Amino acid sequence: MKVNGNWCRAIAVEPGEPVAVKVIDQRWLPHRFVWAALETVGDVVAAISDMQVRGAPLIGVTGAWGVYLAVLRKTGAQDFGPYFERQCARIRSARPTAVNLAWAVDRVKAAVLAQADPGQRAEAARAEAAAIEEEEVENCRRIGEHGAALIEKIHREKGGTVHVLTHCNAGWLACVDYGTATAPIYAAHDRGVPVHVWVDETRPLNQGARLTAWEMAQHGVPYTLIVDNAGGHLMQHGRVDMVLVGSDRTTRAGDVANKIGTYLKALAARDNGVPFYAALPSSTLDWNLGDGVELIPIEERSADEVRRVMGLDERGNLSPVLVPTRDCPAANPAFDVTPARLVTGIITEKGVCEANETALSRMFGRAREEGK
Amino acid sequence: MKVNGNWCRAIAVEPGEPVAVKVIDQRWLPHRFVWAALETVGDVVAAISDMQVRGAPLIGVTGAWGVYLAVLRKTGAQDFGPYFERQCARIRSARPTAVNLAWAVDRVKAAVLAQADPGQRAEAARAEAAAIEEEEVENCRRIGEHGAALIEKIHREKGGTVHVLTHCNAGWLACVDYGTATAPIYAAHDRGVPVHVWVDETRPLNQGARLTAWEMAQHGVPYTLIVDNAGGHLMQHGRVDMVLVGSDRTTRAGDVANKIGTYLKALAARDNGVPFYAALPSSTLDWNLGDGVELIPIEERSADEVRRVMGLDERGNLSPVLVPTRDCPAANPAFDVTPARLVTGIITEKGVCEANETALSRMFGRAREEGK
Repeated sequence: MKVNGNWCRAIAVEPGEPVAVKVIDQRWLPHRFVWAALETVGDVVAAISDMQVRGAPLIGVTGAWGVYLAVLRKTGAQDFGPYFERQCARIRSARPTAVNLAWAVDRVKAAVLAQADPGQRAEAARAEAAAIEEEEVENCRRIGEHGAALIEKIHREKGGTVHVLTHCNAGWLACVDYGTATAPIYAAHDRGVPVHVWVDETRPLNQGARLTAWEMAQHGVPYTLIVDNAGGHLMQHGRVDMVLVGSDRTTRAGDVANKIGTYLKALAARDNGVPFYAALPSSTLDWNLGDGVELIPIEERSADEVRRVMGLDERGNLSPVLVPTRDCPAANPAFDVTPARLVTGIITEKGVCEANETALSRMFGRAREEGK
Repeated sequence: MKVNGNWCRAIAVEPGEPVAVKVIDQRWLPHRFVWAALETVGDVVAAISDMQVRGAPLIGVTGAWGVYLAVLRKTGAQDFGPYFERQCARIRSARPTAVNLAWAVDRVKAAVLAQADPGQRAEAARAEAAAIEEEEVENCRRIGEHGAALIEKIHREKGGTVHVLTHCNAGWLACVDYGTATAPIYAAHDRGVPVHVWVDETRPLNQGARLTAWEMAQHGVPYTLIVDNAGGHLMQHGRVDMVLVGSDRTTRAGDVANKIGTYLKALAARDNGVPFYAALPSSTLDWNLGDGVELIPIEERSADEVRRVMGLDERGNLSPVLVPTRDCPAANPAFDVTPARLVTGIITEKGVCEANETALSRMFGRAREEGK
């Protein structure tokens, strides 16, 4: 999407010498827009583990390009096999919980190992990493197309600006381009449908205030930042037409795990007759799980994320402030699960369907038969 | 309640010479516990308008003691009447929206003006201000008694610790002593009922993280700070037994206006079968209003409260950090209204009743006949 008026993705590979993988160092956003050039596997591992890049799809694509760098950087007399195995394992474990990372690394690794000719390994890695990147972008683009139709429908029915509330950052910064929850917003905006976004700040890490607000500003989509407490009040007063969020994992029953606080917005949406949609690529669907509230494990993160807030201080430096006392006990569940009964629909790259096993199976079962 | 092991109130009058009204300068909490000595009407006005003191009951009591200081500080040859009128008007307008302030000032003023003997004016002011202070304390103490019975009942029925979730600070810091929402918690704790409090941080001004958490720590009540997003998830997993909040205004229909975000917790409580109570002195009941969602005006505050977070920086100074960009548009509705249908009961100094006009009228109608 656009930054400073120019189209860009969250990751780009620079040919030149040496080849470098450029990523936006997201730790500095929104205060500084800085590219980091990753030239070695070590750089890639650091970028992922230090959260210069974040968001499952982007982590996967960064890891895929890391495998390409591993092939390029092989020098000297050491055996390729053990070296390559070791480098892939390093990248894979940069953030062990992100399933996309392991999946993407393994896919590029397999493409490399399938090459009989050592001279073709680099090209095989490049082509596979590029394919993964394009697939992620294409999935998000399609989510945008399907979701934009919903926004357009609201626009046709009620007229005027469509007010969309979103939580956290399921934006292009997390996904190479378009994003998941943001993709329908960008697509509608780019088609000329008047859209305005209520951006939940998303405590404790403020991904809404720091990233989603910045994305909207850069792409020119009208938006307003609010505290996470405000959405219910806005819905009571008819100021929200749709809630649109991403998902970290969605069960076959349609239960949606997403950033902590999503469930509260879904309750308010239901109480006020506002449609609530989750936008997600089908890779996020977990067909093994039924009841998400019961079965999805919720990560408990550091109490310090609750106690401290990072921002720009009065001297212009990024630094944290401590809000309660230093030893204040705090709990920090990072995600919650919105039960399917509160979800109006699931938007995927295949289309929009109801949040239940029958509808999801039909969409993906039929797609499987048709597409393969 | 207790601070550093000693019982104290949020305001105290020191006899001595000169007489001073001591208040806790709440701007420094929880990082510093500082008393401010108010010796003049100017000091009182500044303490109220600069928010050294906050919370409607405490603002009222501080104003009442300000009128006493006005009488004491009258010197020289000027006429008492115009001087006193002017000083009362100054105090009254220190924060024009707090109804308690005007009410308390007018009450002490009337007591002074009813004195024929100028030599008795100071004593009349002292007695009336002290009476107002004691009434506020007594109302909170009674709210505590009535509410503690509800907590004890949960304890008897389920056994073990009772987990209470509260939002914002309806604590003794806002109310001289005991507090409103906190009064039942303190009363139950002091009786030996095991209570644990989930403290919502309460963005944007973080009164939960700064004040309620500090109150609990000082009085020795077990508590855990959480972001405002977390309560729904905790309720889904059976970790909250009761939601207990204060109120800034409650209509005769039982609709409860309170700090923004309260409505979202009420929705989650309803969805998970958790009882939701509002604790308030009857002075907070607005008998003129029916539908609160429709009729209670909601204050829209500065966007900077959303954009900036105040805390202790790494050098130990209280200072703000900027989370989104400097020019990020932000909306900041300060309160929301929880419809009566989501309120299990209203706890007042007269007892506990259902949140509807019939029950509220019966409680206060009967009380009027009995008590007067």
